[in-house]
Amino acid sequence: MALLDILFGRPLASSEDLSERIGPWAGVPLLGLDALSSAAYGPEAGLTLLIPLGLAGVHFIVPIFSAIVVLLLILFFSYRQTIDAYPMGGGSYTVATENLGDGAGLLAGAALMTDYVLTAAVGISAGVGALVSAAPSLQPHILGLCLLILAVIFVVNMRGLRQSGVAFMLPTYLFVGCMLAVILLAIFPVVTGGHPRFVVAPPRLPPATAAVSLWLLLKAFASGCTAMTGVEAVSNGVQAFRDPGRPNAKRTLTIIILILIALLAGIAWACKAYGIGATDPDGPGYQSVLSQLTAAVAGRGIFYYVSIGSILLVLAFSANTAFADFPRLTGIIASHDFLPHVLVSRGRRLLHSWGIYALTALTALLLILFGGVTDRLIPLYAIGAFLAFTLSQAGMVAHWARERGPAWRWKLLMNGVGAVATGSTLVVVLVAKFAAGAWVTTLVVPGMIAFMALVRRHYRRVRLETAEDKPLRLEGLSEPFVIMPLDRWSRITERGLRFAMTLSKQVQVVHVDGDEDEGAFEESWRRNVAEPVSAAGLPVPALVHLRSPYRYLIQPLVDHVLRVSGEMGERYIAVVVPELVVHNWWQALLHNQRAQLLKLMLLMKGNGRIVVLNIPWYLDRPV
Amino acid sequence: MALLDILFGRPLASSEDLSERIGPWAGVPLLGLDALSSAAYGPEAGLTLLIPLGLAGVHFIVPIFSAIVVLLLILFFSYRQTIDAYPMGGGSYTVATENLGDGAGLLAGAALMTDYVLTAAVGISAGVGALVSAAPSLQPHILGLCLLILAVIFVVNMRGLRQSGVAFMLPTYLFVGCMLAVILLAIFPVVTGGHPRFVVAPPRLPPATAAVSLWLLLKAFASGCTAMTGVEAVSNGVQAFRDPGRPNAKRTLTIIILILIALLAGIAWACKAYGIGATDPDGPGYQSVLSQLTAAVAGRGIFYYVSIGSILLVLAFSANTAFADFPRLTGIIASHDFLPHVLVSRGRRLLHSWGIYALTALTALLLILFGGVTDRLIPLYAIGAFLAFTLSQAGMVAHWARERGPAWRWKLLMNGVGAVATGSTLVVVLVAKFAAGAWVTTLVVPGMIAFMALVRRHYRRVRLETAEDKPLRLEGLSEPFVIMPLDRWSRITERGLRFAMTLSKQVQVVHVDGDEDEGAFEESWRRNVAEPVSAAGLPVPALVHLRSPYRYLIQPLVDHVLRVSGEMGERYIAVVVPELVVHNWWQALLHNQRAQLLKLMLLMKGNGRIVVLNIPWYLDRPV
Repeated sequence: MALLDILFGRPLASSEDLSERIGPWAGVPLLGLDALSSAAYGPEAGLTLLIPLGLAGVHFIVPIFSAIVVLLLILFFSYRQTIDAYPMGGGSYTVATENLGDGAGLLAGAALMTDYVLTAAVGISAGVGALVSAAPSLQPHILGLCLLILAVIFVVNMRGLRQSGVAFMLPTYLFVGCMLAVILLAIFPVVTGGHPRFVVAPPRLPPATAAVSLWLLLKAFASGCTAMTGVEAVSNGVQAFRDPGRPNAKRTLTIIILILIALLAGIAWACKAYGIGATDPDGPGYQSVLSQLTAAVAGRGIFYYVSIGSILLVLAFSANTAFADFPRLTGIIASHDFLPHVLVSRGRRLLHSWGIYALTALTALLLILFGGVTDRLIPLYAIGAFLAFTLSQAGMVAHWARERGPAWRWKLLMNGVGAVATGSTLVVVLVAKFAAGAWVTTLVVPGMIAFMALVRRHYRRVRLETAEDKPLRLEGLSEPFVIMPLDRWSRITERGLRFAMTLSKQVQVVHVDGDEDEGAFEESWRRNVAEPVSAAGLPVPALVHLRSPYRYLIQPLVDHVLRVSGEMGERYIAVVVPELVVHNWWQALLHNQRAQLLKLMLLMKGNGRIVVLNIPWYLDRPV
Repeated sequence: MALLDILFGRPLASSEDLSERIGPWAGVPLLGLDALSSAAYGPEAGLTLLIPLGLAGVHFIVPIFSAIVVLLLILFFSYRQTIDAYPMGGGSYTVATENLGDGAGLLAGAALMTDYVLTAAVGISAGVGALVSAAPSLQPHILGLCLLILAVIFVVNMRGLRQSGVAFMLPTYLFVGCMLAVILLAIFPVVTGGHPRFVVAPPRLPPATAAVSLWLLLKAFASGCTAMTGVEAVSNGVQAFRDPGRPNAKRTLTIIILILIALLAGIAWACKAYGIGATDPDGPGYQSVLSQLTAAVAGRGIFYYVSIGSILLVLAFSANTAFADFPRLTGIIASHDFLPHVLVSRGRRLLHSWGIYALTALTALLLILFGGVTDRLIPLYAIGAFLAFTLSQAGMVAHWARERGPAWRWKLLMNGVGAVATGSTLVVVLVAKFAAGAWVTTLVVPGMIAFMALVRRHYRRVRLETAEDKPLRLEGLSEPFVIMPLDRWSRITERGLRFAMTLSKQVQVVHVDGDEDEGAFEESWRRNVAEPVSAAGLPVPALVHLRSPYRYLIQPLVDHVLRVSGEMGERYIAVVVPELVVHNWWQALLHNQRAQLLKLMLLMKGNGRIVVLNIPWYLDRPV
């Protein structure tokens, strides 16, 4: 236990729940890392699709990101309303379930779970990808580095909510500070001198190879929309905040959205002003947009390396938002019987530990399958997020239509605009990215929904079969019929037989005939059991011999117990299994595991009236 | 079970034991393959060390193999005596244990077990090595081929003694026939024409690079002695023969030794007469001695390829002798408590199945560790055999000195000569091969002896602690104190409680307080249990609440049971654990495994007075 404590911290009592909660400043890294890190790849993703337009393409980045900023503002206002309406955590799953029904809820839940797993895998591999493009000698270790970062995130998260919020504070605010500084450094010469000033000139943009088309711009917009994933995390995690929860959550959301808008708008504007475009990621001399921009305004000094370092960290640790939300989400879904109940229970650090295990395992699986390079997963990634956005907004519309309350028409309108905007974006992203892999989502999400429905059906059936509304029945409380296997007379079997005789007046001892001398066994039985018991005037246990032509020992016993159970009708059969318990595993290898095997076979083949009693004999610990 | 039957044959009844036994003609392949296959590599091993002597070296092969043939004859006569004296199987282990004590027996046992494992690994890899040198395109698949052959030998052996004897008859007698034909073809022109006649001339021998030395000849002799391993198999397996066992075993031994002497003497003579020496196994143009000889007397026609094919088969399947004897040997050793008892029991095909599993696993391990090329193991290999020979002969000397009987002085003399001859050979082999790897044996064998001594000590202690010579004690047969954990009222727990109440008047129900409403639980308890039981005039079970600040469920229960057990003194505690049993593994994932975990923890931390009762509830199978 000591090692567990060092690695993951001491266990937390249920009463310490409140002290584990966080305020806005820890909330931003915990729930905002995913959203904020989008600033590092959203503009790049958009600009990459504009490469064929050459210099002209760079000019389109401003209108595209203006549209994205407007969408962000709509989401901002509608999620504020969601936080107010669902202070217990109003993720898309909850909002959709409560307002649009189980089907919509499951769709949102499946979309979000997919999104979180992809966020974790893509975030880590993007961070490692950036690191490797800075230090190419690390190329052979991509997968190892990915799994190392996953392990770090896992350990930090197992230490609890508060500690993981604090742990990621430094890289988050360092990143935000650096990026804002870059933007200000970019704006200053333009405002004061009227034109940009280059410390290091960016590579020249290639000549245009294609004409502008609406389809191209739509695809660039769809790619840029990956910048909006992660925005919903705060509304999901309202319960993580300390009192007053709702205001703290809304404050956190405001901080995250404002910073994100500033970064996206600033970077888009600066790219246009400085004529910085994306370079071919597969070509030689690839350099990220933010690297070009930072070098252009601040040169390649210490500041450059600190900024690039903070980008790497934020990308790699953006996976953490998934870890903050996924276990909470699966916990809520499981509490509705749609996922294994183990996801509901909170472990030693007050976390949904099994959700963390599941996310870590799924992320590791994706990373290993794709060898740590998850570029091909990126198209899948925005779909889940926008599907969840749309369902959440639509659910809120239904919510206001039903609940009404003060100014409900305005609120309905706001969420309605949000639903339409995110819904149309979803369609655009789906169409633009369908061939590139978004079709996978249309297989995975229905599969998950079917699985969740099956799980619920199983739980429902179990509950129906086992629920008891009647009090304890007291009729027919008769002694069980006791069966005990006996190979040879020993202290172990003596004790088993003594216990068997306390349970019932009807005890049957079963002996499987083997190669040894059966006469000696009969004699031992007569001398050690039959005679003393009959002399004491007690009912003598019956001795039954079983034949085993093929030298099997377990099977004849199990068959016999089943046969007796069939004859006994409603009466319980208690099978007494004496067992030797040894200290270490190597001692266990020296003894047959017949008792274990017999218990297992009786459990597998038995019925509800066959009860197994385990009488342990501890070596070196005589009773 | 059907698949098992197809692969390994139907189960055999104990009464079918006799019909599984074999006669001499099946005995030769079963117990003689190892010895006979030596003819394929013994002369080669001796000649390889004589390469530096050039043509002169070839002349020394005749005196060296004359010495080996004399040794073989000595072993032949002494093992005939051993078979007579130990009709129950007189392996070195038995003879050494009974006549020289446990220490010598363990030494012989360890030596033989090492020898058998090495025989299996080296045999298979030699066969594959020969195959690969004939078809170099198989080079990348060496390990795969080795494991494939191991699997074939495993399956054949699992089908039983008789079937494996029959399965290897064809390759064995084909090999013997071909080799005898080669020798006759070699002799004929020399006898009729006075000088050899070459169909295909062998490669010219290289010039001498060293002078003759005693050390060199001793090393060649030591290498040639690998030709004698496997001779002891028959004396170990007397019980495998059908009645009359001893004459059949002796007849088998005679056939094996006569064929082996004919082959070794014939090959040695022919090599000298035809001037055929070994070629450098690592050099280009390597060709085995038997390949050169066969080509020289019969050309490279169909006969050549059949002969070479039969050599490959016999080498690869020489591992089978180890499979025939190792399980029998470990069974005898285990019956003396020196190895896990599971090795004693005979499986569904009347075999010591666990011995076969162990040998297969160890052989596979060696093959995998050495990548299928086990040349480096060859030096280790004769040591075990000669150590066992020497101990067996020495044991027989002690046997005659004690038992006397008719003509005992002659028999003692014969075994004494055998002991001295094999003992000196052991010293020669050990010294000649020490640096080449024989030193490993001096570490492994004492380690195995220490392990076996530990195993026996454990079994002795268990027997001492558990043996019971007194009859059943009947005083103090009091009802147990029953404890049942209860999370919520359900049919499962209702049934558990009913059963608990049949066991004892003192039932304690334990509830771990969780986050849910405890008032509702109290109310349910009062309505469903306390009131009806007290209305019926029965003793009401006590309800105990356990607090669990860290949300652990198992630990408070286990702690409580241990505490109660401490208070109860000698009285038994029966812990009733109701458990839901589901159909498939995926359903098991949907339910917590608390019942399993509780049972395991109670077994690990409990004491001999804590008895666990498992009350299963089968889904879909209501009682």
